[in-house]
Amino acid sequence: MPPAPGTAALVIIGNEVLSAKVVDENGPWLLRELRELGVDVRRIETVPDEIPLIVESVKRACEAAAHVFTSGGIGPTHDDVSIAALAQAFDRRVVTDARSLALLEEKFGGRMNAARRRLAEIPEGATLAWNEQSLFPTISLEQVVILPGVPSLFKLGFTTIRERFRQAPLYSRAVYLSLGESVLAEHLDATVAAFPDVGIGSYPRFDDADHRVKVTFDGRAAERIAAACNFFVTRLPPGAVVREN
Amino acid sequence: MPPAPGTAALVIIGNEVLSAKVVDENGPWLLRELRELGVDVRRIETVPDEIPLIVESVKRACEAAAHVFTSGGIGPTHDDVSIAALAQAFDRRVVTDARSLALLEEKFGGRMNAARRRLAEIPEGATLAWNEQSLFPTISLEQVVILPGVPSLFKLGFTTIRERFRQAPLYSRAVYLSLGESVLAEHLDATVAAFPDVGIGSYPRFDDADHRVKVTFDGRAAERIAAACNFFVTRLPPGAVVREN
Repeated sequence: MPPAPGTAALVIIGNEVLSAKVVDENGPWLLRELRELGVDVRRIETVPDEIPLIVESVKRACEAAAHVFTSGGIGPTHDDVSIAALAQAFDRRVVTDARSLALLEEKFGGRMNAARRRLAEIPEGATLAWNEQSLFPTISLEQVVILPGVPSLFKLGFTTIRERFRQAPLYSRAVYLSLGESVLAEHLDATVAAFPDVGIGSYPRFDDADHRVKVTFDGRAAERIAAACNFFVTRLPPGAVVREN
Repeated sequence: MPPAPGTAALVIIGNEVLSAKVVDENGPWLLRELRELGVDVRRIETVPDEIPLIVESVKRACEAAAHVFTSGGIGPTHDDVSIAALAQAFDRRVVTDARSLALLEEKFGGRMNAARRRLAEIPEGATLAWNEQSLFPTISLEQVVILPGVPSLFKLGFTTIRERFRQAPLYSRAVYLSLGESVLAEHLDATVAAFPDVGIGSYPRFDDADHRVKVTFDGRAAERIAAACNFFVTRLPPGAVVREN
């Protein structure tokens, strides 16, 4: 079964993330962007800079979602293996893109070397989207967008092709409650049963916030979300709702 | 082949993370803790609150790593499915733990209800570690530790059993360089070839930091890391090293 339209999966490639040297900021940023675009993100995998693991992870992501985004592993050094991994995942060769190579030769002239030539390599058959702020295009291969890990380049690469992914909006409402989850559970169960088409989440907290639980209602049909929210709230005792948004 | 000792994998369970309602803080926190304990984290998967996807992800994590940690999906509401998912992953029944139930009954008395009773449910055969600050034990099943998603409870749950996971230390050195990756690449390649037992990473930046590339050397043998670092640095032209640590 092909993945549902409007879905995405992320593959974060980075030993530096797994070894806690840096906190990944590309994943959370892209999650916010995709949410704003109405895209439903189904999974994220964070994997080491190892070709077999990247290949597996990308294949799995392609089965789970219509669009796959990889972060990291792009560049001229030994640990930049994403182009090779993506080529392998789709059984393609790694080739040199002529326009990229010409731009690099123009920039580096006599300082061109093997490492810089690697920057022009792409999986055969990839499509490239250029933007004016960068020497490097955004590389897509089938349903996969291959983005670099440096956050400024990651953001620029995605922003270049952002509008490709826009879907019908996702709507969300939240109700903040003074009651605990154990009291709300039966009302949540009733609401979930009555509105199977609405995504309903319950998030407790145990600090000194103004509420004990936040309940969220998510979906593409605004009127169904409003109805589910109303159904839930009218079942609660007076004073239970602290605020809504 | 059983997973290598001293390795870990994380499974973050949470629609709220995938839908960008919250930024996961448990994953980055646990990565730092595990690093400090000398544990090598091999992968992270972030998946929705859906039993079949959690089961798959946990099984995959168990093949990849000696220790697996799940975050989220613990509690009394409809979207708390981690206990059921973990039981299913290991072909166990969900049972009620007698000590947990007694503690909950003592606390709630006449206000005990079905939702609160759910808080005493565990996969059959799970082992429980109690701590004095919480009504809830840390639940382990085989190689999996099942932690709640609320950050304060996640941290307490892990801290209760933290020392179980301590390994020989992981050592790391970093060299900050004034040269770009395309110039460093050949020296990195030579170092990687000479020190296959050392993990070497290269991280460029394109901002106004004092360096252009950070190169890291990681492993369990401090003297091999020092040797690899020295081998690399002595190949570079004068002035290339901004600082080391």
